Amino acid sequence: MSSVPAALDAELADLLGAGWRSDAAALAAHAGDGSRRTAMPLGVATPADRGQVAALVRACRRHRVAVVARGSATSSTGAALAGGAVAVSFARMARIREIRADDRVAVVEPGVRNGALQRALAAHGLFWPPDPASADDCTIGGNLACNAGGPHTVKYGASRDNVLGLVAVTGTGDLVTVGSATTKDATGYDLTHLIVGSEGTLALIVEATLKLAPVPAARASLRALYDDATAAAAAVARIMAQPATPAMLEFMDAASIRLAREVGGAKIAEAGALLLIEADGDAATLPHVLDALERAARGPGLRALERAADDAASARLWAARKALSHAQRAIAPAKLNEDVVVPVSRIPELVAGIEALAREFDIPIVAFGHAGNGNLHANILYDPDDTGQDARARAALPRLFALTLALGGTLSGEHGIGTAKREFMRDAFDAPTLAAMRAVKAALDPDGILNPGKVLPEP
Amino acid sequence: MSSVPAALDAELADLLGAGWRSDAAALAAHAGDGSRRTAMPLGVATPADRGQVAALVRACRRHRVAVVARGSATSSTGAALAGGAVAVSFARMARIREIRADDRVAVVEPGVRNGALQRALAAHGLFWPPDPASADDCTIGGNLACNAGGPHTVKYGASRDNVLGLVAVTGTGDLVTVGSATTKDATGYDLTHLIVGSEGTLALIVEATLKLAPVPAARASLRALYDDATAAAAAVARIMAQPATPAMLEFMDAASIRLAREVGGAKIAEAGALLLIEADGDAATLPHVLDALERAARGPGLRALERAADDAASARLWAARKALSHAQRAIAPAKLNEDVVVPVSRIPELVAGIEALAREFDIPIVAFGHAGNGNLHANILYDPDDTGQDARARAALPRLFALTLALGGTLSGEHGIGTAKREFMRDAFDAPTLAAMRAVKAALDPDGILNPGKVLPEP
Repeated sequence: MSSVPAALDAELADLLGAGWRSDAAALAAHAGDGSRRTAMPLGVATPADRGQVAALVRACRRHRVAVVARGSATSSTGAALAGGAVAVSFARMARIREIRADDRVAVVEPGVRNGALQRALAAHGLFWPPDPASADDCTIGGNLACNAGGPHTVKYGASRDNVLGLVAVTGTGDLVTVGSATTKDATGYDLTHLIVGSEGTLALIVEATLKLAPVPAARASLRALYDDATAAAAAVARIMAQPATPAMLEFMDAASIRLAREVGGAKIAEAGALLLIEADGDAATLPHVLDALERAARGPGLRALERAADDAASARLWAARKALSHAQRAIAPAKLNEDVVVPVSRIPELVAGIEALAREFDIPIVAFGHAGNGNLHANILYDPDDTGQDARARAALPRLFALTLALGGTLSGEHGIGTAKREFMRDAFDAPTLAAMRAVKAALDPDGILNPGKVLPEP
Repeated sequence: MSSVPAALDAELADLLGAGWRSDAAALAAHAGDGSRRTAMPLGVATPADRGQVAALVRACRRHRVAVVARGSATSSTGAALAGGAVAVSFARMARIREIRADDRVAVVEPGVRNGALQRALAAHGLFWPPDPASADDCTIGGNLACNAGGPHTVKYGASRDNVLGLVAVTGTGDLVTVGSATTKDATGYDLTHLIVGSEGTLALIVEATLKLAPVPAARASLRALYDDATAAAAAVARIMAQPATPAMLEFMDAASIRLAREVGGAKIAEAGALLLIEADGDAATLPHVLDALERAARGPGLRALERAADDAASARLWAARKALSHAQRAIAPAKLNEDVVVPVSRIPELVAGIEALAREFDIPIVAFGHAGNGNLHANILYDPDDTGQDARARAALPRLFALTLALGGTLSGEHGIGTAKREFMRDAFDAPTLAAMRAVKAALDPDGILNPGKVLPEP
């Protein structure tokens, strides 16, 4: 196993004190991520402030040693794997520096957990919109690095849409301050939104100024069952074409419904497709918003529509969606958990294509998720100990991406690329576009030390 | 006067035919922009398609001749001035290629005018949110290049927030295809939003995939008069802290109100500050949204509040804002038309600071505009033929920017930087951040041929 050059080891120990470890326990604790892969880092740096981050990047650059930022490592793509690199933990940079309710702005360090921030903001009647399933664990730095989303994205946007400015350390070890604390900005190059979603390959975020939204006073839900995905997708298009934007608009295909019912025990009638639709607002407007959404949800192929006027009733409607997560684990020990996106009008073709792939490769694939954005989780369920099934799952994957791209879609809506989808970037972008991305990478990280081997394929 | 190298002249004539002109009439027609400055281009290229744009950039690069994209040249910052460069007109690339109502997406060429697009979209019940005052003239390419906004930005976002993907020609003459036609995207580097707002210095946009919004069924307005800017700004913060987002939230300071009344003839009581608040929605929800906005608008220092339930009544309320534009022209032949932005909580300090500058420099300055985003137009009114006044206006300008930056704001919310504010970029960003912007510029335009001398100051 490789190790940190002795001179760098001494420099980092000197710089970081107890914040620099290379013992086996520390390395093992920072070896995995949500992709279930592992790769041993050379050492673990836990800087206390932005100055230490800049200094450690400069030191690593002098020694040509790679640097990989890690939040809570919930990434499902391998983006946080730090094999052969110095892993940077933001556990000591986890302060909420400021909440300015009048400006709807929070200034945070990268190690703050999403859930902890939401609890702090709730006291001000505010929230930060990105709401990934891992919210209790994942950090704001990780959310920004991967442009995390969640079900509320359809109304409130993903991470990139909810950040105003950043302080970050580039691959040269320089601290840059980009964006502003304002909601409108036409001043110079937008490096803020470039760094968001770059998965730690362009810069390490050391502070973020986040755009907040007011917590709605009330929520209510609808659950609509349709004959097939075509009817449900037409409803999605109708819902998105009228001005009452849903707070969530979630889809489940026939396989998901069957799995939730037969394995997950959800009380739900058989149907070809299902939409869960959430409205938010205040007590006066909410019933009208729900009416508008119900009108749009009604149409050819609708089988049943239930309305939940309060949180308890909503929870019953959403139980089917929750049952699905358990049911997936019950029938298969592993899944390839994708998050492809297509224009909403192409959802029926995506769902039909996924069904065809499941038949062709004789493997369960469920499709569900954020229909308002055309962002579906296509989970290929398999047993990694069954070599035949493992091979079939892996063979189905490139076909899923080819299908998505053929429908005018893109590889990832909220998980990012990491190592898992890196080779498919060649299919998503042409050679000149990948070359432009590589040129931007070289501009901010001239020696290629920031999270190498992620996002961009080799030329 | 310099001219195009003979070999390049021949190449471009061969490539573009009648789309290449260097006669005096063509040069003069492409010499000015909305900044009232002029600079003579070397020639005017009017390509018919993206292939011609790529070829002309490659040809200019070989000859080290600069290339400046021009829409309708309404820019007030000098961003479209093409002195000593080949000016590229998009007059022949002005087709709306596709409107996909189900996906709320339009695909357009850069030369399409904003107003023309809005009329085409209206037939589908959709609109593209950016609504600059120059909408009838200005082009989508220009809107994207400068990240144009307008009063609806507070609810719907500016140009950058309403574009999903671009096809663009970089400074190497390569065609790149960035982003996707989906509303959620975590696939690779976000070059889309980087190119937006870069004022033609990173790439020439040859096609844009725009995000559309449904036209609301109804609108209604409030006009609130306050004792002073502090009371009005507190109302802005209250309005933005509750979930019923206004469709517009416009501010006028005491000087603006006085000018609109005394010179513009607007029927309006004396007041220290004014807010114009627009709600949109459907017939059922609109009264409730207006109620919520009215509750938030009420508070200490409110003097009067009028409510307009229909378009005609709204037009009467907005007449004061319209009168202001005429009144400014009546009292001064010229203005330095700035668009600074501060966090909304700092609006009172900005307005007080502007009043102090007007006194100190003995020159009229009116402040009004997009309060929901903290984006105020600070117009310094002067007579350029009065040398004393001209000098005082120009001396007040750096102080306005210093004030804005000291309040945590930024130089421009919707006009951009161009040449007018280029030197002030040194105050807005520190040296490492400007160096990072220059590195990104060099990555996409290695020979510095795209709109040189704009946005970034010399190192």
